[in-house]
Amino acid sequence: MTAPSSLEDLRADIARAVDAVRASTPLVPSITNAITMDFVANAQLAAGGSAAMVYLAEEAAALAAAGGAFYVNLGALLPIHRDAIPAAARACRDLGRAWVLDPVGMGIGSLRAEVLAELRECQPTVVRGNASEIIALASAWGATSTPDGACGVRGVDSTDPVSAAEGAARALARQTGGAVAVSGAEDLITDGRRVVRVAGGSPLMSRVTGFGCSLGGVTAVYAAVAEPLVAAATAAAHYAAAGTVAAAQAAGPASFKVAFIDALFNLSAAEVAANPLTLEEVE
Amino acid sequence: MTAPSSLEDLRADIARAVDAVRASTPLVPSITNAITMDFVANAQLAAGGSAAMVYLAEEAAALAAAGGAFYVNLGALLPIHRDAIPAAARACRDLGRAWVLDPVGMGIGSLRAEVLAELRECQPTVVRGNASEIIALASAWGATSTPDGACGVRGVDSTDPVSAAEGAARALARQTGGAVAVSGAEDLITDGRRVVRVAGGSPLMSRVTGFGCSLGGVTAVYAAVAEPLVAAATAAAHYAAAGTVAAAQAAGPASFKVAFIDALFNLSAAEVAANPLTLEEVE
Amino acid sequence: MTAPSSLEDLRADIARAVDAVRASTPLVPSITNAITMDFVANAQLAAGGSAAMVYLAEEAAALAAAGGAFYVNLGALLPIHRDAIPAAARACRDLGRAWVLDPVGMGIGSLRAEVLAELRECQPTVVRGNASEIIALASAWGATSTPDGACGVRGVDSTDPVSAAEGAARALARQTGGAVAVSGAEDLITDGRRVVRVAGGSPLMSRVTGFGCSLGGVTAVYAAVAEPLVAAATAAAHYAAAGTVAAAQAAGPASFKVAFIDALFNLSAAEVAANPLTLEEVE
Repeated sequence: MTAPSSLEDLRADIARAVDAVRASTPLVPSITNAITMDFVANAQLAAGGSAAMVYLAEEAAALAAAGGAFYVNLGALLPIHRDAIPAAARACRDLGRAWVLDPVGMGIGSLRAEVLAELRECQPTVVRGNASEIIALASAWGATSTPDGACGVRGVDSTDPVSAAEGAARALARQTGGAVAVSGAEDLITDGRRVVRVAGGSPLMSRVTGFGCSLGGVTAVYAAVAEPLVAAATAAAHYAAAGTVAAAQAAGPASFKVAFIDALFNLSAAEVAANPLTLEEVE
Repeated sequence: MTAPSSLEDLRADIARAVDAVRASTPLVPSITNAITMDFVANAQLAAGGSAAMVYLAEEAAALAAAGGAFYVNLGALLPIHRDAIPAAARACRDLGRAWVLDPVGMGIGSLRAEVLAELRECQPTVVRGNASEIIALASAWGATSTPDGACGVRGVDSTDPVSAAEGAARALARQTGGAVAVSGAEDLITDGRRVVRVAGGSPLMSRVTGFGCSLGGVTAVYAAVAEPLVAAATAAAHYAAAGTVAAAQAAGPASFKVAFIDALFNLSAAEVAANPLTLEEVE
Repeated sequence: MTAPSSLEDLRADIARAVDAVRASTPLVPSITNAITMDFVANAQLAAGGSAAMVYLAEEAAALAAAGGAFYVNLGALLPIHRDAIPAAARACRDLGRAWVLDPVGMGIGSLRAEVLAELRECQPTVVRGNASEIIALASAWGATSTPDGACGVRGVDSTDPVSAAEGAARALARQTGGAVAVSGAEDLITDGRRVVRVAGGSPLMSRVTGFGCSLGGVTAVYAAVAEPLVAAATAAAHYAAAGTVAAAQAAGPASFKVAFIDALFNLSAAEVAANPLTLEEVE
């Protein structure tokens, strides 16, 4: 898997990733919060993957071995996550499995800080978060010198625009050696050297819980079949294209979610690859 | 925030509360059961708030400080709730934050009884439950002399009609100094001196899990911007009006839930305030 | 409750079970995984039952006593399940309550193996799983001599066809003295002496999380009013008939789920009983 060097290559890689998932149904286990587990699993299934959610460290390690990639989400932590999340990340590192980190709730509580400190050395294949979370994680892991106290996380919402996180995202990607995806009105994805921007979607995505988490879960599905930048860009393009379709049909946030999952399932690889996006070399 | 003294005032207060939430997007964290977390969060978002769910005592206290109000639900308890729920309630009391208590499962198990004994001194801003739960809580907290054993809770269902809980609700409200909301075919809300009755809604609400829990969560959203009686009445009127709209569109319980959340999002402040309701001075 | 001896009797028993649930609204508590709790509860409510989900051993025992049957699902275990699940099963055995076991995740982790070892003596009224899970459970409990290592579980998916599990299902049913249901493209239900096959449904059922779990939950609802083979056959026929209706209306997996729950609620007893099925005496 090599990185795409032109927008045309990127679109071809995206289409291939969509088809590869549908052809191979990769098993992608998750440790994720209870609020959005159902949405994560259903989005992964709609995209063509197979889902499995776990709490126990032992099960996480067993499923990391059985799966094609792993999704780790830090929302709504339980004490058991103190061991289970690092165990999953270490298993992925040791087995060479791709894993996606979603640093929900950055800045809240000491358990999350302890878990994050252990995850750094496991080098997530993709980090996906909103702008405030990415800025805060880049700072917490020392990729940038922004002081921790400057982060604009409010509960699970971002108070920073995506553009404000570009520097942090690029620095974080250079540190992890993977890709970093910043979700917002327009998504930004970078591996430190290239920046992909993905437009489309709908403002209704912020009026339904779990769009961010389930995007992380689908990113892990694509990370089972594609290199990090392509995996993150494919998930973002799939979400944006499905959001655009769903917004045209929806009467409100709940019918939007139904139409969105249906669209995830129905969009062709060519339709996902045709979503508005740009590729820029930044280094 | 002063209490409304006429039905006209109440309708104006309700309309103001709907608009105030949409203008300010209050963050309202919750400790709630895993079954209905998704519905609670999506209803809070559809009404215009921001949601965050927590399990850990430390996080609950941090989010109580960051939020505009807090929602506490006693369904499907885990051992961790023994500490986290009282910690959240105490943080709200100490910070002067409004909090809503939903005493799901009254009478089942010793953990729930222990938690409830600690919550009494934290004086919930609004208590919301079905008739059997309110009768049982008023008794457990000594607001009424009804013996505990007389409660008609069956699992999470009520076996008492709303009217049977009016005395308990008024006594409980006088004890807490807040409001008490009894959900049923017609909702009853009281601060001990006034009784608001809210009609509308649909019998399908009892064929979908989480209508009670998510009403509690939306009550907390309104408690971030309005006084207790108005907050509870606004949530009940919003639910009843959305239920009436959804019942006209639904083909069954699942399409009803989708149409209901869409209607929560779409109804204007004036439409919510125009829902059938009455105001009575009882003291 | 005696077992049906002809297909005509079976259809009559199925229709009676559908009507009996709707007439009596049996309370059916569950211990089940957090991913699909919402779907389990909503399917139980749509079929006409009442749902309650628990984590604590003490609450499980109290609800087993209050309920008409119990549903136990081994997916996404937490440490607390080590005590709570055996406590629920023992309470059901001691009280003579029907209970349904769903051995999700067979073969993953030592906690699941420990729990399963204790459940064997509690003799589940119905075991429901996919083909790989039933083959693995029959082996783990010594009903068959298939070595454990031969099981084809991959995460929560089956890698074996339903037909491959017929021998294991019959052996397991003879051991438990109840019924065993194997879910797949065509469901197979047996009490060891008879085999019922239920056709219908839709491939979309495998693209939505929780169809298996919620079928288990609805099987427990029917087990509150019917003998094991009839309860399992009624749930399978109800699911297949609702899936057939929903597939004709759906635009993708999410609209399929909505239409499916609506159809569970709307189908008449006669329509459920008319679903394609066969009855065969095998011994």
